[in-house]
Amino acid sequence: MTVSAMSATPKKSLMLFSGRSHPELADEVAKHLDVTVTPQSAYEFANGEIFVRFEESVRGCDAFVIQSHCEPINTWVMEQLIMVDALKRASAKRITVIMPFYPYARQDKKHRGREPISARLIADLFKVAGADRIMTVDLHTAQIQGFFDGPVDHLLAMRLLADYVGEKYAGRDITVVSPDSGRTKLAEKWADTLGGCPIAFIHKTRDPLKPNEVVANRVVGDVRGRLCVVIDDMVDTGGTIAKAADQLRAEGAADVIIAATHGILSNDAPKKLAASGASEAIFTNTLPIPEEKQFPGLKVLSIAPLLAKAIHAVFEDGSVTSLFDGHA
Amino acid sequence: MTVSAMSATPKKSLMLFSGRSHPELADEVAKHLDVTVTPQSAYEFANGEIFVRFEESVRGCDAFVIQSHCEPINTWVMEQLIMVDALKRASAKRITVIMPFYPYARQDKKHRGREPISARLIADLFKVAGADRIMTVDLHTAQIQGFFDGPVDHLLAMRLLADYVGEKYAGRDITVVSPDSGRTKLAEKWADTLGGCPIAFIHKTRDPLKPNEVVANRVVGDVRGRLCVVIDDMVDTGGTIAKAADQLRAEGAADVIIAATHGILSNDAPKKLAASGASEAIFTNTLPIPEEKQFPGLKVLSIAPLLAKAIHAVFEDGSVTSLFDGHA
Amino acid sequence: MTVSAMSATPKKSLMLFSGRSHPELADEVAKHLDVTVTPQSAYEFANGEIFVRFEESVRGCDAFVIQSHCEPINTWVMEQLIMVDALKRASAKRITVIMPFYPYARQDKKHRGREPISARLIADLFKVAGADRIMTVDLHTAQIQGFFDGPVDHLLAMRLLADYVGEKYAGRDITVVSPDSGRTKLAEKWADTLGGCPIAFIHKTRDPLKPNEVVANRVVGDVRGRLCVVIDDMVDTGGTIAKAADQLRAEGAADVIIAATHGILSNDAPKKLAASGASEAIFTNTLPIPEEKQFPGLKVLSIAPLLAKAIHAVFEDGSVTSLFDGHA
Amino acid sequence: MTVSAMSATPKKSLMLFSGRSHPELADEVAKHLDVTVTPQSAYEFANGEIFVRFEESVRGCDAFVIQSHCEPINTWVMEQLIMVDALKRASAKRITVIMPFYPYARQDKKHRGREPISARLIADLFKVAGADRIMTVDLHTAQIQGFFDGPVDHLLAMRLLADYVGEKYAGRDITVVSPDSGRTKLAEKWADTLGGCPIAFIHKTRDPLKPNEVVANRVVGDVRGRLCVVIDDMVDTGGTIAKAADQLRAEGAADVIIAATHGILSNDAPKKLAASGASEAIFTNTLPIPEEKQFPGLKVLSIAPLLAKAIHAVFEDGSVTSLFDGHA
Amino acid sequence: MTVSAMSATPKKSLMLFSGRSHPELADEVAKHLDVTVTPQSAYEFANGEIFVRFEESVRGCDAFVIQSHCEPINTWVMEQLIMVDALKRASAKRITVIMPFYPYARQDKKHRGREPISARLIADLFKVAGADRIMTVDLHTAQIQGFFDGPVDHLLAMRLLADYVGEKYAGRDITVVSPDSGRTKLAEKWADTLGGCPIAFIHKTRDPLKPNEVVANRVVGDVRGRLCVVIDDMVDTGGTIAKAADQLRAEGAADVIIAATHGILSNDAPKKLAASGASEAIFTNTLPIPEEKQFPGLKVLSIAPLLAKAIHAVFEDGSVTSLFDGHA
Amino acid sequence: MTVSAMSATPKKSLMLFSGRSHPELADEVAKHLDVTVTPQSAYEFANGEIFVRFEESVRGCDAFVIQSHCEPINTWVMEQLIMVDALKRASAKRITVIMPFYPYARQDKKHRGREPISARLIADLFKVAGADRIMTVDLHTAQIQGFFDGPVDHLLAMRLLADYVGEKYAGRDITVVSPDSGRTKLAEKWADTLGGCPIAFIHKTRDPLKPNEVVANRVVGDVRGRLCVVIDDMVDTGGTIAKAADQLRAEGAADVIIAATHGILSNDAPKKLAASGASEAIFTNTLPIPEEKQFPGLKVLSIAPLLAKAIHAVFEDGSVTSLFDGHA
Repeated sequence: MTVSAMSATPKKSLMLFSGRSHPELADEVAKHLDVTVTPQSAYEFANGEIFVRFEESVRGCDAFVIQSHCEPINTWVMEQLIMVDALKRASAKRITVIMPFYPYARQDKKHRGREPISARLIADLFKVAGADRIMTVDLHTAQIQGFFDGPVDHLLAMRLLADYVGEKYAGRDITVVSPDSGRTKLAEKWADTLGGCPIAFIHKTRDPLKPNEVVANRVVGDVRGRLCVVIDDMVDTGGTIAKAADQLRAEGAADVIIAATHGILSNDAPKKLAASGASEAIFTNTLPIPEEKQFPGLKVLSIAPLLAKAIHAVFEDGSVTSLFDGHA
Repeated sequence: MTVSAMSATPKKSLMLFSGRSHPELADEVAKHLDVTVTPQSAYEFANGEIFVRFEESVRGCDAFVIQSHCEPINTWVMEQLIMVDALKRASAKRITVIMPFYPYARQDKKHRGREPISARLIADLFKVAGADRIMTVDLHTAQIQGFFDGPVDHLLAMRLLADYVGEKYAGRDITVVSPDSGRTKLAEKWADTLGGCPIAFIHKTRDPLKPNEVVANRVVGDVRGRLCVVIDDMVDTGGTIAKAADQLRAEGAADVIIAATHGILSNDAPKKLAASGASEAIFTNTLPIPEEKQFPGLKVLSIAPLLAKAIHAVFEDGSVTSLFDGHA
Repeated sequence: MTVSAMSATPKKSLMLFSGRSHPELADEVAKHLDVTVTPQSAYEFANGEIFVRFEESVRGCDAFVIQSHCEPINTWVMEQLIMVDALKRASAKRITVIMPFYPYARQDKKHRGREPISARLIADLFKVAGADRIMTVDLHTAQIQGFFDGPVDHLLAMRLLADYVGEKYAGRDITVVSPDSGRTKLAEKWADTLGGCPIAFIHKTRDPLKPNEVVANRVVGDVRGRLCVVIDDMVDTGGTIAKAADQLRAEGAADVIIAATHGILSNDAPKKLAASGASEAIFTNTLPIPEEKQFPGLKVLSIAPLLAKAIHAVFEDGSVTSLFDGHA
Repeated sequence: MTVSAMSATPKKSLMLFSGRSHPELADEVAKHLDVTVTPQSAYEFANGEIFVRFEESVRGCDAFVIQSHCEPINTWVMEQLIMVDALKRASAKRITVIMPFYPYARQDKKHRGREPISARLIADLFKVAGADRIMTVDLHTAQIQGFFDGPVDHLLAMRLLADYVGEKYAGRDITVVSPDSGRTKLAEKWADTLGGCPIAFIHKTRDPLKPNEVVANRVVGDVRGRLCVVIDDMVDTGGTIAKAADQLRAEGAADVIIAATHGILSNDAPKKLAASGASEAIFTNTLPIPEEKQFPGLKVLSIAPLLAKAIHAVFEDGSVTSLFDGHA
Repeated sequence: MTVSAMSATPKKSLMLFSGRSHPELADEVAKHLDVTVTPQSAYEFANGEIFVRFEESVRGCDAFVIQSHCEPINTWVMEQLIMVDALKRASAKRITVIMPFYPYARQDKKHRGREPISARLIADLFKVAGADRIMTVDLHTAQIQGFFDGPVDHLLAMRLLADYVGEKYAGRDITVVSPDSGRTKLAEKWADTLGGCPIAFIHKTRDPLKPNEVVANRVVGDVRGRLCVVIDDMVDTGGTIAKAADQLRAEGAADVIIAATHGILSNDAPKKLAASGASEAIFTNTLPIPEEKQFPGLKVLSIAPLLAKAIHAVFEDGSVTSLFDGHA
Repeated sequence: MTVSAMSATPKKSLMLFSGRSHPELADEVAKHLDVTVTPQSAYEFANGEIFVRFEESVRGCDAFVIQSHCEPINTWVMEQLIMVDALKRASAKRITVIMPFYPYARQDKKHRGREPISARLIADLFKVAGADRIMTVDLHTAQIQGFFDGPVDHLLAMRLLADYVGEKYAGRDITVVSPDSGRTKLAEKWADTLGGCPIAFIHKTRDPLKPNEVVANRVVGDVRGRLCVVIDDMVDTGGTIAKAADQLRAEGAADVIIAATHGILSNDAPKKLAASGASEAIFTNTLPIPEEKQFPGLKVLSIAPLLAKAIHAVFEDGSVTSLFDGHA
């Protein structure tokens, strides 16, 4: 230490910030962490431009900014970007963007020429705004981790969902079913977690001349007389998964339940699910499921304890990986 | 040239792309350029995520992407970003983003601590998405040019508006009025353009203990018996400018007209303007002014010829500056 | 045009460069393009450091740098990076890196905590070295396109392979089989291309306490009496796919053939494949398959015509997408 | 904490560095902070190239680098850039560039085509050299904050100046006057701070055919018999403001005083101001005002206490905003 | 080509820009290229801030910006940076910065701890301002090429100088002498160029306790009765080289001449050189050598033809390397 | 501190990581630091792709990653890059790359046109992978420090080697000899360190028509009857230095010894050195010298204590410069 300098011992402080899309989740996370969400002004100008200002000094803080990317999704993306910009310019020390549901995750590649890769774009937008790290839950494809130039804490909700299913339906003859050919690997993981049950999937046949049109669905695998757990990472309009439930019933399934991390439940998804052959549909609250979207058979498990644990580990330089037995 | 290579003469091709916010303007620009807007698929997924795909090869083209940033403004920002990403990944040679109304231009500085500078954020978002250049009209403050790391073609609509006013109201005793102390310099430019008339502005007094609350408005300058042209870059809710018109009338103005480039006209702005002391309100179509926002005394001038000329100059490496006698 | 300037008409010239790993492929591509590979000096210093120098001026050229990433793979990666650096510093106008087999593609995500995402790293290394674009064939996962900050031309060899299979085995009762749960979607695409045949996959069961150990393999789907086409993007040691072929035989498959784009064929893969229940194994030459790796039943299709067509389209600003009916 | 690591408690240390342009200000700031300016070698080579070396280890320090950008301004800019480079390479932990007067602030936009935006360039130069943050006083336009990609602490000297004026001239009938149409908003803020007095400005008329030539000056607002406080952010050659003072006298002002943050006082500005109708001219010492530039009626207030408070707040992660009641 | 696009054939145009430090060199280069230097306004504001504006449209041009970095060196660096910024924002297609003498080249490494590497800083400043390429002559160390992230055309003046020496002093017994141990390699290259003559150098002994103090100079190599050509890349104050000439004379040299690319000639260097044992001193005009610096025995060779040839090759995508038989 | 935040005192922890090329050196460094090398899995896939995973949490650590760049050099470069990527994504706080021998250091400039500058490329590759700092020993040229955009701790082994020589050969008449004209300056530094002895070098004459072919070697300087210490930064194939030793013997040297920091010793270098006229050859262990490369007269000094001291200083924010009396 030189004679000319002034010395001090640094402190570090965790501050939690929340966008306006799903305040209940942020509050629940805050309670688990024993902090309060940092007060802020956030509103729209008459033409829809968003304004945000923090009511307390954020200088030097370790900032965690949570936003659930439900509808209107572009508004919430922009709000979170603006919050990150304000934190950067107000000298936050480190900024972790928490997106329980990663927006535009389905556009993670060019399916055909001249398409965007919007999931990469999202990563770049947050990077340029000032995000140092991203925390998210059950990415549509794990490769999205690689879209961000920095650390991504990828939390997994499967254990949460599978434990619930395992306990409630203990003793039943379970087949894990992927609603299409793309989630077979996820089904395999579920099967392992549930103790080694069989898996099945729905094979969609397309006419090569009309590649976007499904000609027929075939169930591949053993489902007759069994409890079919149809799994997925997200349920949006519910069409595919409801049809899958119906078809499984038609092919002799004893019972069908649905389990997915992200309950987007757009349009009349609740009605479809309620009317389908599935007796229960289990989601987490990575996205808000407001009262008008709720339906009989819906079960919502809270992701807040997991998020709080992960935030705490990040703040204290603990291991997030250990929350998942190394699988994160 | 080496013996091992294949040679060719390069061609260049201008392609025009349009977001979905204001197709009429894009079509009008296209007509002036004698091209058609490039066909594309653009729609929202059920949860609001935007998808865009171009129907024709864009490889190597000189792309101009136009979007008017009206409401829902964050949706249109994101759509334009996604279009730029798709163009970049599809090997467009150069990408010019055209934003006739620059979104978030009013948040061009921190008015107080812990605020974002969203106008800079917007520039960075487009840069990281792949924009090479920006073209825009009448920025809220000209300094926003410096927010983008690359060329910005800053077009000016004042001549268009002033020519209309100068012709229609030839021979009248005009005073140019700034509705607040921040636009006095713009008023001075108008006055010069109209041939040297006087200017005035409204002085707002605030209580130092309540800095956001206006105590009184005072007209500073000569308005009695004169035709007052209240000018601004944009009119959003119309409150300030309508009040200005009323006060000018109250202080003896013979007549009041309003002229601004960007007619945002949020909420009941049309009603306010129609009910104000202004006899005419003149805007350009940088933003769409749909039928339900129209009102007696409204006059809309088209910005399309100016945009088309500037696009043509950019494509042909001609001078954009010369469109404005050096002032751009 | 100003009076003070000197004018000229630009020319553009395509130059092809080749690393030393697979000169036959580069030569074949060159022949299809009717150019010659640009002469260069390339050798290793005594301590293994690579040196490259081009023998002709490359100033202003449209450079295409092809390298096959076989063993010693890190040497070939470094050589291609050094070639890109030399091209950048020698003023090449545009640099397209051609990696018929994308190296480190399998490390495209963190399977567990504290792992690298080497496929993203590869993209960043080439970007920082000076690559403007990447051209590659059948990525392990299509999301890798999003790892590069720029255009990626993702060519598909499935049509090439499927046409060969479709013609040679016309009239047979085909089932397309994925050797594990992760390639089921690819199997579905093959099934569509072959005209709507059924698909199957091998379900691997793991003990949740020992997640890396496979307990049992189960064939899910209909294979008895049928010609099983086991498909994959690459075959490395051949263990999984040879075991799949054997199991399919054991469960009554009439015949088994193997089709994959990238024939890595490490270690004793040729022996394993020759000894397996598969009667034919079809690969492309994205990687060299030297004589000592060849075995009875091996069929190698050339990817050179496809690469040459794509290079030509890139150079001429033609559509690469159209080479694949929009699917690229 | 792992068993294999070595642990320690981090310390942080503030070090103050000073360029050679205005050592008195740096020393004054150091005294307020109770540190000494870090000793360094700094000199020019015979051809004018600057050399800097620090005499003490700076590894891990929180570095604050102060330089006043007076003449020869480009030399001082380069010296500060070189200091930042040396700090970066010597492993300073964080580098804050303090520019009490932001150089090239007036070139903050393209006034006409083909001009630079030098104020943005300055921000980029310091960023690339290694600056993490900027601290500055009274920017010519507040938008310059947005030119830097990182936190900018924008300190305001108006309160310092206004308090002095308010106390010394208590009880007088004050009109705040902007010397041109561009500072009317600043005049309005002064008026609010001084308790609600009227404002005025000088309207310059230009001939539209010779846009750079002023035809006439008109005082707009009420000045007769009042104490006119002519305000600005900087006074360079003093021509405009001296002429304003004279004109205000001519139109009947009882008295005129001048107040501005930055006293550049180029050429014969001191003589002009001394000879003008202004009885007092008040500046801060953001720039040195050497003896030969001093004149009767000059009053210099020290900015050092404010800089020291802000540096301390930045070092201790305190709030800089609170120094200005939220307005920073 | 799509139906919706507008097509054209691109043109390219070379434009030459010159800073104000050495207009004669720029004019000479322009004459060789048969263009004129682009007219511009360039001047200083009263406080030394530089302003530049181009008088003609530069949109799409291939810009070459020449500046000689003589005193006041920081002013000329900043002027060239500002010119590059203005060109970037005015849409120049490509910007080549020509620095015949690379400023700060001697600070190309940290000689001791806590020093800057100013030569790298210079490269970064021009990169961030917008420079695409650099052209320079005889770098102090060739490694500086690697400081710039892009192409550097490194021209060599040794042939020019050596041809002059070889012709004028044909038949003499030449020894090439390095004035210190650091230029021995350069001496070796000169010796090879002049046809294989011997070389020598001056060995400076230092006291290890006072490392900056030279204790003694020893001539190592054969100089008695020979014509000694003392070579260097630059001559600044002339002290070292004048002392070398004297010592060579003292040790029996028949004659001494001096040859260096860059004649900085600071302070009383002309006087020192004139008074030294050297009978002739040969430089190029990479830097201006004004009349007051000229002295008997001075010979100046023009670098302009070489610069013009290189500019032409860059513009036409010809080979610069070939100008130097591969050595560039 | 705000009421809503959670506070804590930060800790910092040093973790040491080692590639697989030279574990003995890493272990020795670890012992000096009293830590253990962090356990990891590192192996190659069948096709040579490297995989690395750390066995302990690295979140928030100060990571030092050591790798010796011996053969297969590209493999070890890639392994270290992958380790850095994994550390970055696992949230290491700071990453210092330790390269005792900087790979590709000899390609530090373009010797001729169209060559790479691989030493700069190496710096960029590590930067983009996530390295914050580099630590290295005796760079081939010190300018390489400037290739990295960040702090480089450049350690010097000359003192270590010179102390050994000075002690062992005390009292002898030493001449320090550079094996070619490029190391004369290094010889001068050795001479100063050894107390002021004379220096010499070998002048290589080339035919200007065949610039790569040496025509003759001449010893310049006094060597007869003296102990010649031939110094260099590295010995690769040993050809140059063995030939120098022989020639020195032939010109009457009493004895010859060799001293260099990096003993690459490729091919039959050990045999050449053993057979040369040198009686002793001294290296450090920056590179492993395995048993099969050892030979009579070889002496290896350990660099580990120096590396450990430097690492400790970096971790504790102490001065690295002071380890070298300011010369680093």
